[in-house]
Amino acid sequence: MLERFHVPEADQIRVPPEALRATVERIFMAVGVPEEDARQGADVLVYADLRGVETHGVSNMLRVYVQQYRTGQLNPTPELHYVIESPSGLVIDGDRGLGLIQCPKVMRLVIEKAREQGVATASIRNLGHTGPIGYHAMLAAQQDMVGLSMTASGSQVLPALAAEPRMGTNPIAVAAPAGERPWLLFDAAMSAIASNKIRIARRLGVPLHPGWVASWTGTPIMEETPVPEDGDFHQLPLGSTRELGAHKGFGLALMVEVLATLLSGSVPRMLDPEVGSRHFLAAFDLAAFTDVERFKQTMDDMLGMLLETKPAPGAERVIYPGVAEAETLAERSKNGIPYHREVIEWFDQVTAELNIERLERL
Amino acid sequence: MLERFHVPEADQIRVPPEALRATVERIFMAVGVPEEDARQGADVLVYADLRGVETHGVSNMLRVYVQQYRTGQLNPTPELHYVIESPSGLVIDGDRGLGLIQCPKVMRLVIEKAREQGVATASIRNLGHTGPIGYHAMLAAQQDMVGLSMTASGSQVLPALAAEPRMGTNPIAVAAPAGERPWLLFDAAMSAIASNKIRIARRLGVPLHPGWVASWTGTPIMEETPVPEDGDFHQLPLGSTRELGAHKGFGLALMVEVLATLLSGSVPRMLDPEVGSRHFLAAFDLAAFTDVERFKQTMDDMLGMLLETKPAPGAERVIYPGVAEAETLAERSKNGIPYHREVIEWFDQVTAELNIERLERL
Repeated sequence: MLERFHVPEADQIRVPPEALRATVERIFMAVGVPEEDARQGADVLVYADLRGVETHGVSNMLRVYVQQYRTGQLNPTPELHYVIESPSGLVIDGDRGLGLIQCPKVMRLVIEKAREQGVATASIRNLGHTGPIGYHAMLAAQQDMVGLSMTASGSQVLPALAAEPRMGTNPIAVAAPAGERPWLLFDAAMSAIASNKIRIARRLGVPLHPGWVASWTGTPIMEETPVPEDGDFHQLPLGSTRELGAHKGFGLALMVEVLATLLSGSVPRMLDPEVGSRHFLAAFDLAAFTDVERFKQTMDDMLGMLLETKPAPGAERVIYPGVAEAETLAERSKNGIPYHREVIEWFDQVTAELNIERLERL
Repeated sequence: MLERFHVPEADQIRVPPEALRATVERIFMAVGVPEEDARQGADVLVYADLRGVETHGVSNMLRVYVQQYRTGQLNPTPELHYVIESPSGLVIDGDRGLGLIQCPKVMRLVIEKAREQGVATASIRNLGHTGPIGYHAMLAAQQDMVGLSMTASGSQVLPALAAEPRMGTNPIAVAAPAGERPWLLFDAAMSAIASNKIRIARRLGVPLHPGWVASWTGTPIMEETPVPEDGDFHQLPLGSTRELGAHKGFGLALMVEVLATLLSGSVPRMLDPEVGSRHFLAAFDLAAFTDVERFKQTMDDMLGMLLETKPAPGAERVIYPGVAEAETLAERSKNGIPYHREVIEWFDQVTAELNIERLERL
């Protein structure tokens, strides 16, 4: 993640990962989520924070989930409903469950199917937030498969050259195992920047970079700007301007909409503001395509060559998606996860309210 | 396509589509391609030029194909070899055939499999240039399926923050049918700009936009620049700079490399400069996922809403991928395809050399 998103040292409080896991699990259970699901939800959020994916860990989103469970927007005990099943494709209704708890379950079904068929996919409708979608892709990688994961959600991003937002940030994730090297793990919004990064920038008081957002009239803001008030700006697609490729970010977001939304028999948020998130998962069983060891060796060779690539002037090194995450995982597993003190204050408040143990800190 | 890539009116010569098709077919046959394959190759190239995809039509690439057939780099009579077949996944060796002729054949196999399985994919290695890959995706759309098509090729694009090129432009295409609206047809390189656009800019004498290329040392050139000499620049990934999302374009290009190259048991060009192109195709049979008419109706509703979106200041209208192509198709089917006179000169020269009829013009 870019330097500007890191929590300043002075505002940091470190929390042991296992303490975080226990507290998050208890919070989920306190709002009605069954124990096994609560454990799954905690695992996804701790995964994000251990890897430095602050945008999708507990800081931004857990309080939103708690609120959505309390207001009934999220169903704490959903039953996944098979809408259609073909030999390699699944369509599932998520029954208003939290996506980050339900998607891993569906990915496990997809993995089973892929083991028989070579390839399998699922299109899922009617979910809550799907969290750090790289987690779901990684479940396939852990089974010697290539995993894909995409989410269609929201309608805050402008199409190319538009003045009105229509698209979600529609992230795409891919995970693939390697041998010795950190595994490939790509997970990125098809907007110029993830929505949660804007929230973090606001909390940290740092400005937005040129090309990240447009004015409310649709003109890309091409200089540094303080985070505008909600309603005073729109998010731009990846590519930012037409010349730099905004039509490509827009087109990729439409691809996600087709695979996740249209194939699951749902509609995009631009047509129905009340519709739940839609998701697309796919797994490709390596053994059905090629020699598994050869695949991992070629991954190692390719990823090693990327790491040895000469950096551009001003850059320290070249890395590929997954490397920084693996390094942060190693460091935070040892030293705990750093949170902004405001996040810890929220934990203290919510654990008191829910009458569960206070979050342990280092 | 951006205005700067259009052939200036004064340099335009218009050719009837059917005349182009006949001449291209004869050229393919003259270099040893069997009639049916020659017809397929001509169809793909005419498709590109009829839709305004000049970068992948006859202007840039046909002369390269002719040369590659003549030197033996391309095999005019390849036999597609099944490496592995699982119920939903195919791995195919292309036997050094021209990708734009062989990929449609493989896509037809994938479509057959998808009709049984719901979803099917193919990873193909050892091909020549795959042409306008939207064509292959569109074959699935024409069968009431969602089609995906991706190509891994080349090693001229920088990873994010790198000074040495490693990646291909690795385009991604998706096609999906609609009802009344022009169908969704997205087809774009995961580099800031397609390599062929740089060739066209050089031929037309127009400058490159800020953020399209980097200096040979890896620094993104963020002002307008005349097209540098080959070797004096590198191509940037989609996103251009780290802040604007170069890591996203780079990550998407790696996704293509995994699905097309690693799953087909091949290696990326960065590891073996002699390796052929790799390709990934997928088809999702709508009927196995949802109600086909409902899918098309939702597509129409979504695409219609996009077309009615208020444009940003300075923009004439909002369109989605596939609209401009459909309009150009209608216009050129009526008025012929405009070529730069230099392209027509090449045709006259090559048809004379190969002793076939001269290309008809309007």
